[in-house]
Amino acid sequence: MSEFQNIGLIGRTESESAVISLKRLMVFLEREGYTVILEENSANDLAGHGARVCSKDKLGELCDLVIVVGGDGSLLAAARTLAKFSVPLLGINRGRLGFLTDITPDEIEQKVGDVLAGKYMAESRFLLDMSVTRDGKPTGKGSALNDVVIHPGEFIRMIEFDLFIDGQFVYTLRADGLIISTPTGSTAYALSGGGPIMHPKLDAIVVVPLNPHILSSRPIVVEGSSEFKIVIGRHNVANPHVTCDGHDQLITQPGDVVRIHKKPHRLTLIHPLDHNFYETCRSKLGWAG
Amino acid sequence: MSEFQNIGLIGRTESESAVISLKRLMVFLEREGYTVILEENSANDLAGHGARVCSKDKLGELCDLVIVVGGDGSLLAAARTLAKFSVPLLGINRGRLGFLTDITPDEIEQKVGDVLAGKYMAESRFLLDMSVTRDGKPTGKGSALNDVVIHPGEFIRMIEFDLFIDGQFVYTLRADGLIISTPTGSTAYALSGGGPIMHPKLDAIVVVPLNPHILSSRPIVVEGSSEFKIVIGRHNVANPHVTCDGHDQLITQPGDVVRIHKKPHRLTLIHPLDHNFYETCRSKLGWAG
Amino acid sequence: MSEFQNIGLIGRTESESAVISLKRLMVFLEREGYTVILEENSANDLAGHGARVCSKDKLGELCDLVIVVGGDGSLLAAARTLAKFSVPLLGINRGRLGFLTDITPDEIEQKVGDVLAGKYMAESRFLLDMSVTRDGKPTGKGSALNDVVIHPGEFIRMIEFDLFIDGQFVYTLRADGLIISTPTGSTAYALSGGGPIMHPKLDAIVVVPLNPHILSSRPIVVEGSSEFKIVIGRHNVANPHVTCDGHDQLITQPGDVVRIHKKPHRLTLIHPLDHNFYETCRSKLGWAG
Amino acid sequence: MSEFQNIGLIGRTESESAVISLKRLMVFLEREGYTVILEENSANDLAGHGARVCSKDKLGELCDLVIVVGGDGSLLAAARTLAKFSVPLLGINRGRLGFLTDITPDEIEQKVGDVLAGKYMAESRFLLDMSVTRDGKPTGKGSALNDVVIHPGEFIRMIEFDLFIDGQFVYTLRADGLIISTPTGSTAYALSGGGPIMHPKLDAIVVVPLNPHILSSRPIVVEGSSEFKIVIGRHNVANPHVTCDGHDQLITQPGDVVRIHKKPHRLTLIHPLDHNFYETCRSKLGWAG
Repeated sequence: MSEFQNIGLIGRTESESAVISLKRLMVFLEREGYTVILEENSANDLAGHGARVCSKDKLGELCDLVIVVGGDGSLLAAARTLAKFSVPLLGINRGRLGFLTDITPDEIEQKVGDVLAGKYMAESRFLLDMSVTRDGKPTGKGSALNDVVIHPGEFIRMIEFDLFIDGQFVYTLRADGLIISTPTGSTAYALSGGGPIMHPKLDAIVVVPLNPHILSSRPIVVEGSSEFKIVIGRHNVANPHVTCDGHDQLITQPGDVVRIHKKPHRLTLIHPLDHNFYETCRSKLGWAG
Repeated sequence: MSEFQNIGLIGRTESESAVISLKRLMVFLEREGYTVILEENSANDLAGHGARVCSKDKLGELCDLVIVVGGDGSLLAAARTLAKFSVPLLGINRGRLGFLTDITPDEIEQKVGDVLAGKYMAESRFLLDMSVTRDGKPTGKGSALNDVVIHPGEFIRMIEFDLFIDGQFVYTLRADGLIISTPTGSTAYALSGGGPIMHPKLDAIVVVPLNPHILSSRPIVVEGSSEFKIVIGRHNVANPHVTCDGHDQLITQPGDVVRIHKKPHRLTLIHPLDHNFYETCRSKLGWAG
Repeated sequence: MSEFQNIGLIGRTESESAVISLKRLMVFLEREGYTVILEENSANDLAGHGARVCSKDKLGELCDLVIVVGGDGSLLAAARTLAKFSVPLLGINRGRLGFLTDITPDEIEQKVGDVLAGKYMAESRFLLDMSVTRDGKPTGKGSALNDVVIHPGEFIRMIEFDLFIDGQFVYTLRADGLIISTPTGSTAYALSGGGPIMHPKLDAIVVVPLNPHILSSRPIVVEGSSEFKIVIGRHNVANPHVTCDGHDQLITQPGDVVRIHKKPHRLTLIHPLDHNFYETCRSKLGWAG
Repeated sequence: MSEFQNIGLIGRTESESAVISLKRLMVFLEREGYTVILEENSANDLAGHGARVCSKDKLGELCDLVIVVGGDGSLLAAARTLAKFSVPLLGINRGRLGFLTDITPDEIEQKVGDVLAGKYMAESRFLLDMSVTRDGKPTGKGSALNDVVIHPGEFIRMIEFDLFIDGQFVYTLRADGLIISTPTGSTAYALSGGGPIMHPKLDAIVVVPLNPHILSSRPIVVEGSSEFKIVIGRHNVANPHVTCDGHDQLITQPGDVVRIHKKPHRLTLIHPLDHNFYETCRSKLGWAG
């Protein structure tokens, strides 16, 4: 019998193609005798399904495996909520990019079947915890599997802040913003911003300045255990915003302190056995020439 | 007698240091027998000055030379308004950077005196005209000495649009935005975005994609006479904004068309005789090593 | 009757596929009644051809059109020799890249037929003249359609030199080298080195530092009429080399002066009517995504 | 009593300023009662010194600490030889850059005195071992503290090779070369080539392609324990060379295999207590603005 008996399903809502794959996946899983539990928003798109429905948090408690049907964005959202449970995630690609969701819709039965039969690779990924304090009091927090981004929010205006890593002053940066990215995020926004690719197994975090005023500012890669502190400058015209994986905007004030470090809980990401990081790079980034 | 008799003055408002330099400049000019005319906002900062006051537009009509005291931003603003008149501009630096304003406050009498005595270089710079149309009807327009920037406005979200140059399709870009920059702007935001430096005399425009999704997107330099057309994509989550020199935000809708081309009127920028573009680069960009 | 009656042919020697296309082209041209003249090296690969044979220089004098079968490298070589004659060039692609040679081998009859019937675009491209002097005496010279490159020659060692543009000192550069590129060359080596793409019609030259020691060194685009002077530094471990389009290496000594400016003769490049620069970029650089 | 009693000295030969600092250092060390042993080449520059002289290898056996007077290049050379012994290194800067040699000549007595009195930070740095095999037989090997570079040797010609990391195919690269760099080397040549800065404590290696033909090729950061295999392509015009820290050129043939992995022995680098990596970055890279 499979180690995965209770399977949670999350679909990218309002995506017709995700709904089609979700139905196909349900039919397959129920036929094979697995217990399917649907995330409540995803269930709305599936009239007359007959499966148990619950919140995303509850899914984390009840399931042995959660399958996400959508793009990398859907998997990122699931990961942020479910990382605090030990449930592993598997992604089926229904979006544009697919560094995280590497099963295509037409191979659902075969690839998901293989995974459930124990033929898979489990990969451990870390997330970032972010918190903002004002005069020492917390004003907000968030988690990110890809990246935490400090940016000017509304306007195309440079922002200014001080960066400290492990208590050491790095620099006062004037830029469009700053990306603090995990290896998982290094192939997403950080890559467009000029950051290096980091292998998913690497225990490191990269700091990528966005369009910095000082041209010699460069991406900096530090240990995964590093503690980041960003102090928002006094002379900003805009109020710098902080986002986690491009979501949950927090608006800062001058003097606010943003702290970022590795989350204690890690995410287990499930891949088919033929998954290969460099092959994904070659295909997605056009390295084949 | 000087070819410049009526001298207009514009100061960066709310800047104490600019007010100090403005007063020093007035004392010098009046002592030397020139007629000083103050821009109305700048006059507010100068109690009991006794000089004639008028709008920026009127300044363009009345003056033989306009002196701007402030940063490059102050000179950009003056240039956008005054380009349609033939009045030349001279800049005194009271800001952070100074590619355009190259007289320092402590050499006002000597350098401005030299310029008024005919010892100067006149440099012709071109501006860009930008207009937005929806279903063929104009919804807004603007001018820029540095750059026109298309960006997502409120959120850190990629935007998507089609770029055409001289009627030829270039690409569909998914990026944080796009900078269309003059040689004057090439040492400003376009440089932070990864664009090349363009010599001020060059008759060319550079297109710089901001953090593009496709990594092989590169800055493209085309003739100054080129006509740019940007068609806002149908699938944008954010409403792309258009700014001129970082000001005058226009908000677009899917299908809107942004057109950019060289402005018919050019700006005459006055420099002291010892001005040297490459020396400014060496000093501002730290090339001396 | 076609304006092109005497057609010169040059093939990439020692390339079997080029020989096949060359034969096919000869058959077509002779059947259509054109006079074919073969470049002497290319003729060696074509046993029993029966056509007139002459040197590349003679080809420039005798022909109304010269067709090059090979890669961009073959066309570059032909252009360097033939630019001093007024004969236009047409390229058939038998190499890897094809920014210059844009007819594919299987469309020879149709596309070449169209060109000979007057259906073509003629594009004017400029070349660079390079000369080296030691103590005021010439030691060597060359021409380039793509680029002149200063590099360390044998070793991976930084070289040091002073760059002057139009008599103005730009900087002392310590780097792996320097590329001085035409718009034609901007999609070749200069692009790998981080330079911008320049539209072929642009009258400009770009200076691209190769892996510079000073991180704020950036590509600089200047007017096509600019005069470049590079003075080889006194402290170089290696003897900097100068190459034109990657050929004709000249070895310099400390104090040598390298001068580069636009060549008086221009090259006329012939394209089929459906040629489109941006489409070539999209296809060769993978902009389609 | 100091833990460091026998002090080895190595000076940058043929550098007058290094000789001056070496003499000053000897006077100081002998006055304080330490046993000074001179590296044989360095001793040649010091007439009538009276100290014991031995080879660099012997220095590694006999000394408790080796002090290098010179630039980062001198320290790199010492590190490659001495890493197999457990002797720590301290650097006094007499060269251009100084990421490794962080004591200035005028503070020798104070800073070296502090270190000998036990006031110092010890930093562990790893090196790379490189070996080349042809048809399975070794043809050469080397060590590097900064980087191993594959490059074309004599000509400015692209080279082609296959890169494998931990047995997985990464890509076939056509480029000017490839840098495999430690964190120590990340602020040296790899930085000029577009690589990220890596904190010295990070256990990672970065792969930086030099001016790659495929524009989407990017620096890749992988775990320090990674095994690299580079297979030299069959179609290279040039014979790719391999250098370690810019020295010891090995010339490869098509089909040769270059293997690179972390050296078992690590280097201990000694810093004064006020040493700060980010301060060095700010100062050397001009981040202060």
